[in-house]
Amino acid sequence: MGTDETGMERTPVTVMGLGLMGRALAGAFAAAGHPTTVWNRTPGKAAPLIASGVREAGTVEDAVGAGSLLIVCVRDYDAVQEILAPVSGALSGKVLVNLTSGASDEARALAGWAAEHGAGYLDGAIMMTPPGIGAPDTAILYGGSPELFAEHEQTLRVLGGATTHLSSDAGIPSLYDVALLGIMWGTFNSFMHSVALVGTENIAATDFLPFATDWLGGVASFMATYAQQIDKGEYVAGDATLETQVPPVGHLVHESRIRGIDAAIPEYTKALIEEAIARGHALDSYARIVEHFRPAV
Amino acid sequence: MGTDETGMERTPVTVMGLGLMGRALAGAFAAAGHPTTVWNRTPGKAAPLIASGVREAGTVEDAVGAGSLLIVCVRDYDAVQEILAPVSGALSGKVLVNLTSGASDEARALAGWAAEHGAGYLDGAIMMTPPGIGAPDTAILYGGSPELFAEHEQTLRVLGGATTHLSSDAGIPSLYDVALLGIMWGTFNSFMHSVALVGTENIAATDFLPFATDWLGGVASFMATYAQQIDKGEYVAGDATLETQVPPVGHLVHESRIRGIDAAIPEYTKALIEEAIARGHALDSYARIVEHFRPAV
Ligand SMILES: NC(=O)c1ccc[n+]([C@@H]2O[C@H](COP(=O)([O-])OP(=O)(O)OC[C@H]3O[C@@H](n4cnc5c(N)ncnc54)[C@H](OP(=O)(O)O)[C@@H]3O)[C@@H](O)[C@H]2O)c1
Ligand SMILES: NC(=O)c1ccc[n+]([C@@H]2O[C@H](COP(=O)([O-])OP(=O)(O)OC[C@H]3O[C@@H](n4cnc5c(N)ncnc54)[C@H](OP(=O)(O)O)[C@@H]3O)[C@@H](O)[C@H]2O)c1
Repeated sequence: MGTDETGMERTPVTVMGLGLMGRALAGAFAAAGHPTTVWNRTPGKAAPLIASGVREAGTVEDAVGAGSLLIVCVRDYDAVQEILAPVSGALSGKVLVNLTSGASDEARALAGWAAEHGAGYLDGAIMMTPPGIGAPDTAILYGGSPELFAEHEQTLRVLGGATTHLSSDAGIPSLYDVALLGIMWGTFNSFMHSVALVGTENIAATDFLPFATDWLGGVASFMATYAQQIDKGEYVAGDATLETQVPPVGHLVHESRIRGIDAAIPEYTKALIEEAIARGHALDSYARIVEHFRPAV
Repeated sequence: MGTDETGMERTPVTVMGLGLMGRALAGAFAAAGHPTTVWNRTPGKAAPLIASGVREAGTVEDAVGAGSLLIVCVRDYDAVQEILAPVSGALSGKVLVNLTSGASDEARALAGWAAEHGAGYLDGAIMMTPPGIGAPDTAILYGGSPELFAEHEQTLRVLGGATTHLSSDAGIPSLYDVALLGIMWGTFNSFMHSVALVGTENIAATDFLPFATDWLGGVASFMATYAQQIDKGEYVAGDATLETQVPPVGHLVHESRIRGIDAAIPEYTKALIEEAIARGHALDSYARIVEHFRPAV
């Protein structure tokens, strides 16, 4: 075990997978004084880490034996299985922390598999790119046993200051992951659409940007109001009804078409608004749109 | 003319249209000490304003005669024409400030019409709901003669502290308006999608909300990077390539489908990413997606 300046013992960790993300994870653990062992399918990727005291294991067995906390961060769940299935007998008593992205059902299946082999399991979704690993506002969202999380929270917090435990269900981080990425893509796509729109008038993206980012602050505050309405199931329009949004969304479709720009995004919005109005919700707030997405029960 | 505490003269204004927005506009002018005349197609809507010294004109002629700055804020451009065409002879020397939402071509046509009748023209897009009128961070975006804007800027700033002149082209505010609304709808739609997604696991919208709003802060900072890349035409992926976004967008489609949720939004994102990759841009940043929206030249 390593010790820090206060003499506290540091958990030995193993990082399996030295892609862009795995290297950042191993680097952060080593920098924080954790005895760190790494393994990668293709050898040689550990080279830049060796200087900071990281040890490269020659085999998966060696890697699994060296750490009590086994971090795995590879391309996908199939790769996780390829790595771990041959050493399943050595997992008993270990804690597997899977930071590989995937779907919630894959995470639950892996958690079950780990339990069968006597290993603890935590699943984490890293909401950041590799350069942000170790930063105070980097969010990593965990699911799995709360006791296991509490036991290793301090170690896991080395990877991101905004580390949070979401649920005892190991599938939940994957769901948050794609739910948040979905908001990112939705915002990016409409931003690109809008940049192209103003671009037809020779307005630079960087000139439009401050308007868009200021505006997003207001959008976020509406989301807060809407979240409360959704939980209550009451969609009272404080100031902007669905009905009042019909003409402007029509203008956006029109501006897109006359400028030769794909209008699929505003057409989809228009259809969502019209659908809610057709169901009798013309005077409700935009939050009513959530019902379109709710699965039929 | 009214005068303020420094003895400065206040421009007399007329507000035509007393819907939710027109009433807020007239109220803000009156509160700031401007001699304010109002007119509405359906009489009687001025009642709550009269107490604050606003005068209700009985006819459009009377209303147009009373103000040097003529604010019009009605349902649409057809309504503007219905109101003003009969009094076109009285517009010479006046400044028409149109705050009615519409399309850029409508705004340009109205600007031309005003010029034919000897009136100055400013077109404004109000990026706020009525309760925000008069607030320091309320953005109203103007187009039209910069000299005319400079002359009346102080008066117009009464309606919103973040009042800005965008362009001498009167059509530009309408374009910014729908471009910003498009970003709002795109973000709202994917937020509603994500709320429904986590809702299938009984996670409340208000519990998901702080993750979504924190995340939007990061999304906005990516937009800043992407805007620069778009202006340069160089889409260097600092850390996240288009290729690395294929598996997670697939997971989002998968999670949506298995939970019975409309997957149209992530399917569209997936198609955009795959299209860019097929064009040879697998290693570029997400900003490359702007090319999908750029009109063919
Ligand atoms: N990069 C990001 O911004 C980011 C952000 C959040 C989450 N993540 C997630 O983190 C995980 C790793 O991402 P990354 O950016 O590090 O990817 P990467 O740079 O492409 O690295 C992929 C890693 O997976 C390994 N691998 C692939 N197939 C394997 C197999 N069959 N057996 C053993 N190892 C295999 C690779 O080993 P070789 O070197 O031998 O090919 C490499 O170490 C992914 O699930 C990703 O979604 C990434
Ligand atoms: N409310 C917002 O959050 C908001 C935000 C930004 C921009 N805007 C824009 O502001 C404008 C007004 O919106 P609002 O919220 O005030 O709408 P509103 O409450 O529905 O009021 C509509 C106004 O238009 C008048 N009108 C409609 N047709 C007319 C016609 N043919 N001739 C004369 N007057 C006519 C109405 O007069 P009657 O009383 O006689 O019916 C009423 O004064 C719209 O262009 C809207 O897009 C609104």
